Amino acid sequence: MRYIEEQDVEYIAIGAAVLGAGGGGDPYIGKLMAKQAIRRHGRVPLLSVDEIDDSSLVIPSAMMGAPAVMVEKLPNGKEPETAFRTLEKYLGKKADAVLPIEAGGINSCIPIYTAATLGLPLIDADGMGRAFPELPMVTFSIAGIPSTPMVVCDEKGNKLVLETINNAWSETLARTATIAMGLSSMISIYCMNGKELKNYAVRGTISLALEMGRRITESSRSNINPVDSILEISGGFRLFEGKIVDVKRDLTTGFVRGTVSIEGTDSDSGSSFRIDFQNENLIASKNGRPVAITPDLITVLDREKGFPITTEALKYGQRVIVIGMPCDPFWRTEAGIRQVGPRYFKYDIDYKPIEELVKENL
Amino acid sequence: MRYIEEQDVEYIAIGAAVLGAGGGGDPYIGKLMAKQAIRRHGRVPLLSVDEIDDSSLVIPSAMMGAPAVMVEKLPNGKEPETAFRTLEKYLGKKADAVLPIEAGGINSCIPIYTAATLGLPLIDADGMGRAFPELPMVTFSIAGIPSTPMVVCDEKGNKLVLETINNAWSETLARTATIAMGLSSMISIYCMNGKELKNYAVRGTISLALEMGRRITESSRSNINPVDSILEISGGFRLFEGKIVDVKRDLTTGFVRGTVSIEGTDSDSGSSFRIDFQNENLIASKNGRPVAITPDLITVLDREKGFPITTEALKYGQRVIVIGMPCDPFWRTEAGIRQVGPRYFKYDIDYKPIEELVKENL
Repeated sequence: MRYIEEQDVEYIAIGAAVLGAGGGGDPYIGKLMAKQAIRRHGRVPLLSVDEIDDSSLVIPSAMMGAPAVMVEKLPNGKEPETAFRTLEKYLGKKADAVLPIEAGGINSCIPIYTAATLGLPLIDADGMGRAFPELPMVTFSIAGIPSTPMVVCDEKGNKLVLETINNAWSETLARTATIAMGLSSMISIYCMNGKELKNYAVRGTISLALEMGRRITESSRSNINPVDSILEISGGFRLFEGKIVDVKRDLTTGFVRGTVSIEGTDSDSGSSFRIDFQNENLIASKNGRPVAITPDLITVLDREKGFPITTEALKYGQRVIVIGMPCDPFWRTEAGIRQVGPRYFKYDIDYKPIEELVKENL
Repeated sequence: MRYIEEQDVEYIAIGAAVLGAGGGGDPYIGKLMAKQAIRRHGRVPLLSVDEIDDSSLVIPSAMMGAPAVMVEKLPNGKEPETAFRTLEKYLGKKADAVLPIEAGGINSCIPIYTAATLGLPLIDADGMGRAFPELPMVTFSIAGIPSTPMVVCDEKGNKLVLETINNAWSETLARTATIAMGLSSMISIYCMNGKELKNYAVRGTISLALEMGRRITESSRSNINPVDSILEISGGFRLFEGKIVDVKRDLTTGFVRGTVSIEGTDSDSGSSFRIDFQNENLIASKNGRPVAITPDLITVLDREKGFPITTEALKYGQRVIVIGMPCDPFWRTEAGIRQVGPRYFKYDIDYKPIEELVKENL
């Protein structure tokens, strides 16, 4: 049996931020919650998807809204548990395991907190294999699993149970509630059985994040750049190396939409690079030609230590290495591209797998 | 045993609009729903508060949002029932009776629909004795009864169960959900037992509305002005008679805030009158001096037939009689005035009972 120990929380948070593709926000509060829960209740068993019975009840636990807000609007520390227990009560059934919904700083920590606190195992999988901004952007939704009944809780003690006609309505109603609650909430959503989990989950996300985080941390201690090591375990590509010369952000649409411009250094000297982002990095172009497109993963790493930099933290002058990784095959289906491809995010460009783009344009 | 028959729905809708004090909106859809439910399921027993056992479970059924929207965004006809049944299921108990939450066009009809459809009696009472725009503006809230668990349903089939830390949060979260649902929803809220009902309900609202509506209808048939008859049964006052010369409406705050100016005719010839309203009529002044202030009731009646005119329907040129009626004593307590008095609605004036104002200023 594998377990998540307190130290692993740091590794997972780092690795999940690599997989978060610029999204997932500041994991600070989530890490504190997960580590404290492990100290208090003990380490968390990590089960692979295949270790879950077909008839088991599995419930994802996550944070919704703006992670940045949580640093000032502190959780009361009970919301993920309350959301989880309220959903169990509504279903009239006890869950057998906790499932992460996405890879990303805070949302890789919250399910560890919930699992530790409730004495449940965590499942080594998620519904994205990366981070995305909206509730229907999970493999489960594409597969037709309803997001509801779902529960939304705030730190004041308000909670709501939703039952909707489709997952887009869950996004609308849970989002307006989360905004009214002060921009952050804790949710339980997409409850499913073990069979559905096996069919549709993105497998191994937690152990992949853990391994990435461990390598980055260990490399940084011995002053080795960990990029090659990350690319090796993710099947990814080194896209660009340079210095950030401009970051533009526009908040008028309610999401953080922007671009970052990078001037090449070293082997990329003389070239320019641009990333279009909306919470997550969505399109990467070198000298005006796309080299990675959502849903494939685009992540900016600190050039010295290899630590991931989220879109929130991008700044003028940072020396960075940009990497790209292929997304889970589920996202490359027609339905997947419709839900999270470039046109969904209003970019006038067609999706092409990173493997092909890298060959053509890098 | 008294019963509400199909014809009574018309009377109740008219009388409730008189008690609605300008609010409560267009009852058209509500009337259709209530009448059809009685045709289909039979007449509805009307019980007085004292006929309810202390241990009975009582649930109010109501519409939330803008009644005007419902004329185009039609209900599917099941929402009040769904909201009611969902709340029963969440509570794990069956209700013994349906309670109206306010007097006002549509919200006096919806509980009749719900009672008829579910085969339950209707209680001859409500939580206001008039209409008010926000969820905490009921006697039950002042008395400390929680508004939640409450259920909000839309015509598409979305529903949510709310549990909040106070009734102001219910207003915020149910309101944002209702807006997202398209500005109208059906709710079940403020469930209580028979003892709480006896202590805090405004009694006799439905039979008072029914009697007012019957008198207005019968008078209009025989060309008798019913105003004296209405004032007799409500203990009210004739405040002014005249012609509307101006109506101003401002929607920028999300509510309809406005004023109506009336030029005196007959015995009020030479005088001027003004009503400040926000959905409901809130302050009435004659020649610049207040003669009725919220929570006392101010209602505008058509001068010929005596039918009530809601604030939505006020128009230049209408010949009207304005009447005022004392509110339920519950509203005149300090807590009541804090919740629904003039300062809550941002008017810089103190409440004074209509009986005194009429003596001083009319």
